[in-house]
Amino acid sequence: MRLHLNENTAGCSPAVLAALRELNREAAGFYPDYGAARASAARHFAVPEDHLLLTNGLDEGILAAVGAAFRDRSGGTPEAIGVAPAFDMYEVCTAALGGRMVIVRLGGSFELDPGAIAAALSPSTRIVFLTNPHNPSGRGYAIDTFTALAERIRPVTLFVDEAYADFSGESLIARGTFASHPNLIVGRTFSKSYGMAGLRVGAVLAAPRTLEPLRQVVPPYSLNAWAAAALPIAIHDHAYREWYCAQAAESRALLSEACARLALPTWPSAANFVLVRIGARARDVVRSLALRGVLVRDRSSETGCEGCIRITAGVVDDTRRVIAALEEVLCGAQ
Amino acid sequence: MRLHLNENTAGCSPAVLAALRELNREAAGFYPDYGAARASAARHFAVPEDHLLLTNGLDEGILAAVGAAFRDRSGGTPEAIGVAPAFDMYEVCTAALGGRMVIVRLGGSFELDPGAIAAALSPSTRIVFLTNPHNPSGRGYAIDTFTALAERIRPVTLFVDEAYADFSGESLIARGTFASHPNLIVGRTFSKSYGMAGLRVGAVLAAPRTLEPLRQVVPPYSLNAWAAAALPIAIHDHAYREWYCAQAAESRALLSEACARLALPTWPSAANFVLVRIGARARDVVRSLALRGVLVRDRSSETGCEGCIRITAGVVDDTRRVIAALEEVLCGAQ
Repeated sequence: MRLHLNENTAGCSPAVLAALRELNREAAGFYPDYGAARASAARHFAVPEDHLLLTNGLDEGILAAVGAAFRDRSGGTPEAIGVAPAFDMYEVCTAALGGRMVIVRLGGSFELDPGAIAAALSPSTRIVFLTNPHNPSGRGYAIDTFTALAERIRPVTLFVDEAYADFSGESLIARGTFASHPNLIVGRTFSKSYGMAGLRVGAVLAAPRTLEPLRQVVPPYSLNAWAAAALPIAIHDHAYREWYCAQAAESRALLSEACARLALPTWPSAANFVLVRIGARARDVVRSLALRGVLVRDRSSETGCEGCIRITAGVVDDTRRVIAALEEVLCGAQ
Repeated sequence: MRLHLNENTAGCSPAVLAALRELNREAAGFYPDYGAARASAARHFAVPEDHLLLTNGLDEGILAAVGAAFRDRSGGTPEAIGVAPAFDMYEVCTAALGGRMVIVRLGGSFELDPGAIAAALSPSTRIVFLTNPHNPSGRGYAIDTFTALAERIRPVTLFVDEAYADFSGESLIARGTFASHPNLIVGRTFSKSYGMAGLRVGAVLAAPRTLEPLRQVVPPYSLNAWAAAALPIAIHDHAYREWYCAQAAESRALLSEACARLALPTWPSAANFVLVRIGARARDVVRSLALRGVLVRDRSSETGCEGCIRITAGVVDDTRRVIAALEEVLCGAQ
């Protein structure tokens, strides 16, 4: 059981798989066409197509945002600001393109301090990375936090990674904020609730002028033909996504209840995972679960996550099994 | 008929399609594993795995090479050197990441002047892009040209794009030159002879230390699961690739003969395309062919390609049809 990478363990919608099996040798041989995928994604996010760039997973969108932000180096080594703990690709991309990551530590309950972020700005700051809901805690922040911060740090780019927003139902995109916040970029992925991590489909959204330098970084044939064919079908299958988000919500509740019974602290999560404080035994617990065939994510050595593991909250049956395994590991053979 | 992007118009090997149709919803849902694809590609190129980086099409490899080369900007705006005419992604990636492209014009028969390239070097030069066989002329250069140039421009990176090397049978990789040329990077693609442009599989090869900064630019989940599954099957199907390369060779000969009959100059091609000098009517000819359902590439306004079109030389039946259409357009109704 793969509960360590916040994947959709049920996989993609059956309708997506059926469509992929219709693709032929020519689909493999020809460079992909993105007309239908782009139109479908733009309708889904309720933005014009020029506000949207499809990417080969959101990782590519993060890389493109860093590449665009760091293009002008008149100020010396460019800086990105991120929080700790956080998804590691912000720092990986920053370093890969020659920048420096400046870290602002979150509060003990993963609360965000916009003042601390503003205080970390320097003349070399080009981009700030935040995630909503936050990974790895699952904490959801008020949408206004981001619009206010975008205003405050302008013209520095604010990249808000909404990889898990399908689970929280809260998004900056719905507010139509790009016109008033030209320095705001929102990242989305179809890896999670849509179960398409293996197909690699992400998107970045921003005002057209803001998106333009990112379009130049992303190669013209980025998604492959199978990903491009999958996207419109996946978006169209509302029922599948709703079923999966409901499973994730029920799994979060089950995990929180089980951890409360086991006297393990958790944090309220708006995403498809729960962060659990195990304490000094965290690493052993991860290993013992792995021996039982259950992979969870060891976060115990990360700033702000000391002693913690992160468990994907997906299909309810999987969740019941990880809870049983966790009880067995923590309480001995039952 | 798509003869404008040098695709394999027969598509991928039937064995590849059969393997892709076996993939299930879990393949879509989970992040891909590259173990088999990497091992297969390393065996194919006869290099250790640490000499190889799989990329989401070779475009991503080019972007990664530029990103790595431009990471250190202590010398001001970084420069790339390329030739004209050439594949446009070298310049696109250079500009996207804030660099400047310096162009060295090829000779009238697309001959390469290593001295002119060396003379274009400046303290800001970080990378030189060349293609063998050359695109869009199809001219193949002696392998020694590149090893000698790599030596001469060291420590500046020499990126040799071998996208069409399956058709020429000549490669820098076979010579095992990476140990003695740490500034050499070779790019390959599975889009052409393997018919997998829609699946997006490329590779860059270099000495392990040279490849390391490129690995940091390429996201950890770059190829999608369908591409990763296709690659070992495609590599294993020697017969299909050999059939296609033989078709391309026969098509090149047919195109050259037909153009000679029509008094249209061509250049000897070692790739799966032929550059044809039409003259002042080039644009009209491209349009007339398109009206007959045949797409060819208009190169007529590019430096060194004045009045030229490029025609993909793939499946022989397609080639016979494009020749008939060309005769019709140039000689009037037959």
